[in-house]
Amino acid sequence: MRPLRKGRALEGFHAYVDANADRFIAQLQKLCSQPSVAAQRLGVRETAQVVLEMLRGIGADARLIEVADAPPVVYGEVGEGDKALIVYDHYDVQPPEPLDQWHSDPFSPEIREGFLYCRGVADNKGDLVSRLQAVEAYQQTMGSLPLKVKFVFEGEEEVGSPHLAQFVTENKGLVQGADGLLWEGGRKDMSGRPAIYLGVKGIQYVELRATGASRDLHSSWAPLVPNPAWRLVWALNTMKDERDRITVDGLMDYVAPPPEEDLELLRRIPFEELKIKEDLEIPQFLGGATGIDAVQSLLYAPTCTICGIVAGYIGEGSKTVLPSEARAKLDFRLVPDLEPDLVLDLLRKHLDRRGFDDIEIIPLSGEHPAKSSPDASIVRAAVEAARVVYGQDPVVYPSAAGSGPMYPLSQALGIPVVSGVGVGHAQSRIHAPNENIRLSDYFESVKFTGQFIRLFAILD
Amino acid sequence: MRPLRKGRALEGFHAYVDANADRFIAQLQKLCSQPSVAAQRLGVRETAQVVLEMLRGIGADARLIEVADAPPVVYGEVGEGDKALIVYDHYDVQPPEPLDQWHSDPFSPEIREGFLYCRGVADNKGDLVSRLQAVEAYQQTMGSLPLKVKFVFEGEEEVGSPHLAQFVTENKGLVQGADGLLWEGGRKDMSGRPAIYLGVKGIQYVELRATGASRDLHSSWAPLVPNPAWRLVWALNTMKDERDRITVDGLMDYVAPPPEEDLELLRRIPFEELKIKEDLEIPQFLGGATGIDAVQSLLYAPTCTICGIVAGYIGEGSKTVLPSEARAKLDFRLVPDLEPDLVLDLLRKHLDRRGFDDIEIIPLSGEHPAKSSPDASIVRAAVEAARVVYGQDPVVYPSAAGSGPMYPLSQALGIPVVSGVGVGHAQSRIHAPNENIRLSDYFESVKFTGQFIRLFAILD
Repeated sequence: MRPLRKGRALEGFHAYVDANADRFIAQLQKLCSQPSVAAQRLGVRETAQVVLEMLRGIGADARLIEVADAPPVVYGEVGEGDKALIVYDHYDVQPPEPLDQWHSDPFSPEIREGFLYCRGVADNKGDLVSRLQAVEAYQQTMGSLPLKVKFVFEGEEEVGSPHLAQFVTENKGLVQGADGLLWEGGRKDMSGRPAIYLGVKGIQYVELRATGASRDLHSSWAPLVPNPAWRLVWALNTMKDERDRITVDGLMDYVAPPPEEDLELLRRIPFEELKIKEDLEIPQFLGGATGIDAVQSLLYAPTCTICGIVAGYIGEGSKTVLPSEARAKLDFRLVPDLEPDLVLDLLRKHLDRRGFDDIEIIPLSGEHPAKSSPDASIVRAAVEAARVVYGQDPVVYPSAAGSGPMYPLSQALGIPVVSGVGVGHAQSRIHAPNENIRLSDYFESVKFTGQFIRLFAILD
Repeated sequence: MRPLRKGRALEGFHAYVDANADRFIAQLQKLCSQPSVAAQRLGVRETAQVVLEMLRGIGADARLIEVADAPPVVYGEVGEGDKALIVYDHYDVQPPEPLDQWHSDPFSPEIREGFLYCRGVADNKGDLVSRLQAVEAYQQTMGSLPLKVKFVFEGEEEVGSPHLAQFVTENKGLVQGADGLLWEGGRKDMSGRPAIYLGVKGIQYVELRATGASRDLHSSWAPLVPNPAWRLVWALNTMKDERDRITVDGLMDYVAPPPEEDLELLRRIPFEELKIKEDLEIPQFLGGATGIDAVQSLLYAPTCTICGIVAGYIGEGSKTVLPSEARAKLDFRLVPDLEPDLVLDLLRKHLDRRGFDDIEIIPLSGEHPAKSSPDASIVRAAVEAARVVYGQDPVVYPSAAGSGPMYPLSQALGIPVVSGVGVGHAQSRIHAPNENIRLSDYFESVKFTGQFIRLFAILD
């Protein structure tokens, strides 16, 4: 990374953020109160309307852009200048289940001891709102923005953004030629260090389905009637072995080792494995991985994960039933060279070869991997903004462990990308019950965005 | 089986049943409207009260007998004579789930085209009520009963009758020395032939539980954090192979071939395999079994059945979650020489030997196998009563494919047992959505019980 002159602290901007803290949180709570579960098609359109009004509230020229029958993209432009920055966030959230593990209602944002709890607050409604508020604060304290900001807020990120590529194709004029892309937030790590990332893994999410008799039967039929739950167990068993190695024929042949410059970044990552293990209450990582090997696995290993499995009776007590259907939901996280369609093809052939041609594979979503160079000006602006606001070097991850729909808006258009630091922290419990953010992190994130906009506007 | 003189038709009794048909069905509907799901502890005590009142309505000396904290046994005595007959039924039912597959509410009994639909009507509230009504009709048309009937109606059959043995121990004076036991009903087969059975398989029902991190995580953690869903798949895979053979170490060593006299009964069973396959929409039985081999498997093979499995997200669409827990419910059906505790012991050792000592085994219920001789007078009374009422020989199964808590009330006390023909038919969908009986079968079953009581009283 090239060195950069130290950014100024923007005292007036910061004071405005502090003075408006209560109103900002109320605004965030309002958006979080609106359920928007893409997987269940719950409340997404209503939420798009709320976001549209927020965009207009900061003077953006904003509208809903429809793509097929998907939840609309909320698009808005604000500011003038030679440079154009795309800001990407999503207004949809993960399903809140299992509900009984929440300490407060997932869509009734509740503040407890300096934390705000609700579904979506960390992933990523908090980032979305904080960025609008950063623009407001910038305008109120320093005048109009020094560049053009193009907000792209989609409503299907949590189901794999199945229409984002189509949005880009159909609205290329809006995004093509932009100078950089600010992605949804990273987060603070276990020691409170700000972290950013320069890419994402891809993903192929599938449902496997096995079927048996025409209906659920009394289990006394088991000596004669096929049980799809067993079929599914046997099929899954061929896909990953007891040492957690993916055994889908040919899949691992597409996995290349990380390039040397990435290893260089990996070595600088302060990976707090003891804290992580303690927090998750696991004695060791898979295969006993530790240190840089563990970091490398996390960021560069493909995965094959049972995200869900269900068949038959799953309530309390016992029920003697022979199920007529069994389903498993799996995600494959994809490193460079592994593409979503390739995985589908390999999996189909793998199962067929073993006599599991009765197992149906239903692709639910696919995303390409994507990655930026550490030398891009947008990366340097983010690193420097983090130094100014957080008073320390951010941790730079060459790729996230997770996936995201980065590809159509970045690599596919040649636009470099970086994540913000974001509003989350290491125990934000994204995708899990009791998702939360620390309020103080939230305000730092508003300030980070203000700094970042200023720096990116002036950097070569 | 020894031949028996043909029973008379009891015209007056039959006429009474026909004249009271509407009231009898209304009475049945009333009991079926009362949910009594033992697995969910739903409504069982309220149902016991309804049953108690029905017993008193036919003049029985009846009371609730408490055993530990279980739903009470409803016990009643009616009639006088040298012989004593125990009549066993249960007032609890299977859970109604999955609810969305019912065409009418499972606890709102609905008559459609000569069938009555609701949870529990075939298994076995219909038998229970029809037997009380048979006693009423007997008393109204022929005077007092020719023997003493002891009704034992329990409320935990569908969760494996965990307290029935204790009930027998604590109330031995009530049941010891009885001359026979009339068990809950068999059913008509696919061709409408009445069927009875002389025994049951045992069962061991367990839940297997695997645990991972302290909470559900974003699935990007998969390269490092153990996934209990995979652990469970791998453990299950060691228990049964892809040819549906049970591979739990040592279990099959306890399985003896059926004795010759049982094979003799087997050969007489008209097993309508084509109809069954067509109905269940399966091309063939497991392993391609056919004819007497299929019957033998059904009645004499032990099983290891995944009745339910669940982990992670199972709703609509996709959720990228790494689950923190995975659970499977399994039943092992047990043939003679396989006892519930033995199976638990074999399974624990089997899993431990393969490194799955982290998988918890939670026993949910266990029942011993039990079986009567075809020569017992109670069997002959049932066969003859069926001939009179149905106008044909019943099909006699030496054992049921299913399990039941027969052992404590029969084999353990030396009391011979037989099932009634019962109110069900081949498509009664017991334990499944849209459970139902044919109304005409119901009235035949009332008549069968009247004949059976008369014949058993006079047979040596």
